[in-house]
Amino acid sequence: MKLVCAQSDLSTRLSLLSRVVPSNPSNPVLANVLLIAETDRLGLAVFDLSLGMQVWIPAQTTETGSITLPARFFNDIVSRLPNAPIEISVEDVLATLTCGSGHYQMQGIAATEFPILPELEEGRAIELSSTVVSEGFQGSLFAVSSDESKQILTGLHISTFGEGLEFAATDGHRLAIANSILDPSALPQSAQAGFAVTVPAKALRELEKLLGKQETQLSLQFDQSQVVFEFATEQGTARLSSRLLEGQYPNYNQLIPRQFERQITVERQRFISSLERVAVLAAQKNNVIKLSLDCAQQSIQISADAPQFGSGEESLPAQISGDDLDVAFNVKYLIDGLKAMTSAEIQIQLNSATSPAIINPLAGSKMTYLIMPIQIRS
Amino acid sequence: MKLVCAQSDLSTRLSLLSRVVPSNPSNPVLANVLLIAETDRLGLAVFDLSLGMQVWIPAQTTETGSITLPARFFNDIVSRLPNAPIEISVEDVLATLTCGSGHYQMQGIAATEFPILPELEEGRAIELSSTVVSEGFQGSLFAVSSDESKQILTGLHISTFGEGLEFAATDGHRLAIANSILDPSALPQSAQAGFAVTVPAKALRELEKLLGKQETQLSLQFDQSQVVFEFATEQGTARLSSRLLEGQYPNYNQLIPRQFERQITVERQRFISSLERVAVLAAQKNNVIKLSLDCAQQSIQISADAPQFGSGEESLPAQISGDDLDVAFNVKYLIDGLKAMTSAEIQIQLNSATSPAIINPLAGSKMTYLIMPIQIRS
Repeated sequence: MKLVCAQSDLSTRLSLLSRVVPSNPSNPVLANVLLIAETDRLGLAVFDLSLGMQVWIPAQTTETGSITLPARFFNDIVSRLPNAPIEISVEDVLATLTCGSGHYQMQGIAATEFPILPELEEGRAIELSSTVVSEGFQGSLFAVSSDESKQILTGLHISTFGEGLEFAATDGHRLAIANSILDPSALPQSAQAGFAVTVPAKALRELEKLLGKQETQLSLQFDQSQVVFEFATEQGTARLSSRLLEGQYPNYNQLIPRQFERQITVERQRFISSLERVAVLAAQKNNVIKLSLDCAQQSIQISADAPQFGSGEESLPAQISGDDLDVAFNVKYLIDGLKAMTSAEIQIQLNSATSPAIINPLAGSKMTYLIMPIQIRS
Repeated sequence: MKLVCAQSDLSTRLSLLSRVVPSNPSNPVLANVLLIAETDRLGLAVFDLSLGMQVWIPAQTTETGSITLPARFFNDIVSRLPNAPIEISVEDVLATLTCGSGHYQMQGIAATEFPILPELEEGRAIELSSTVVSEGFQGSLFAVSSDESKQILTGLHISTFGEGLEFAATDGHRLAIANSILDPSALPQSAQAGFAVTVPAKALRELEKLLGKQETQLSLQFDQSQVVFEFATEQGTARLSSRLLEGQYPNYNQLIPRQFERQITVERQRFISSLERVAVLAAQKNNVIKLSLDCAQQSIQISADAPQFGSGEESLPAQISGDDLDVAFNVKYLIDGLKAMTSAEIQIQLNSATSPAIINPLAGSKMTYLIMPIQIRS
């Protein structure tokens, strides 16, 4: 195997892929990146037995072949090389990297040891624009649980919903739902009956990074146990595969109240800034802040007490319908949801100080954020 | 006490001062910042019994007075306030902060509880430009020991040297010396006989931050146990004081060889980049890299082996006089010294693989870096 490629191409891809590589894998070859030298292109793949990624970069290959090399180590060297052509040549399992006046040798493991990345039989393929996917992730991924004991909640639930796709995440304290309208022709016959999968958040965060800011068409395909995202690049198909999470995802739609006694409209950015200041005090005591709705004044007052330190309050104008109410929230959850939105104004709807509040952006992509109030002694 | 000041003035100063405040002080008042409201200005001071800082910002004071407030907490709130006037009013030891539509109350401690910051009697005052000080710190502070058991080596040694000032630091493995020429009139009579003090590095790093990029005149004053740096600002004198470290600083000048058998001139930036790449391999094995001087080829080869991983080598052109030699160094120490220099080219002088090497920049401010080779089995 022998080829020449550009340092910038190799470095940007390796730094993405080496993030996925496990630190202490059961099988040493899983700490490696698979290199596949074909005419005019070099394939790079990593796989942790759950999440797999494969990309292609341009290369001048004089001898095709394949090998696996220690991913982090390889990345550490390549990222420090000057932006110049890199020659990679492999004899048996010893790779030599030459760039400018530098020579690096590293021990690899034969490519035959590397597990085969999952590929799906012709299954349900859905065509999506990367914008739909990015907006869906932006509005939901942040609310995924990080508690590994709640396995199913560490994933993002992706399902068909009317004529669109729905991305939902909950950690038991809050629920974020982002909806995208799809061109009906994007759904293949097999998927038009509707589907639902739960994908580990980790895989989707890597997909976000792999996509970057590029606008492209993405194909989503899945079977009982795997999901595969693919998109075309000049050198070949970039692919990210992940196992699906097993188990029943909570029936979250039933949590959303359909009628509300109170409705508040407020400037999103100003609300966030005020919350962030009062959060300094709330941080001293479980992050609890109190919102006091004043219908007569058409204003919200945000307040928090920190024993021994002091207290803080901010008031801001709002359009409020319904009676006055004091209601308490975890300020971090509140800020997380508001930051995932992009609209200038947002709407809060709620019934009482002990029932869920629903926050929606008043423009832009459709998103629903449910947050449970915290019960406080008055 | 009652005043109005600008959020930006208060926030930039508070964020500098609150860094110095101890986390769990023996005396709670030391976690506070002292506020002194005088006509047209507000003084802010912190003190951890070793390091003290005091600065002034403009204020419209309607009622003079003083108080101490929890420094980090105060800073956390002020830093999040909008860039607008802040009103601070104090009743007894309860302070109220008002900014826009926000109100914050915090419990303070009476200013009388705050220890008095050291002030020196008329002593030896040396006038320095901030540029001299910044260049001196830049060329030496990085080499100060972080090992608290070697107390005296955790400080920077500042002394008169001929017609200038010398800044020296060593951690036992390397020694960095930066020299500045002084206008002879800058030294008062009392200091012309020469002096030497050792100042905790922590205090000088805070001084660097306090000075920022501004060019100003600095006065350095000290007695047996304290050093005080002062500089004028529009609102009043900014002051940083620190206790001196006690004990005899090593007589480092005797460590520097006066004659050398070998001399190498090399491009600094290219040398650093090559070292950083080979350092990836050296990181697997005590950070040891080998320099091989090739006089015939007029080149240096940098190499490292990482057992199980591989090996790396870089070669770069150099002007070399003297015989060929293999010599090993800790690559981190080598890179630290080279990065503290600013010249395009640097010179390395050495005698053997077991005696100290001296590195100097070939232009710019005068600096001497001594680094001990590491003995390797050939």
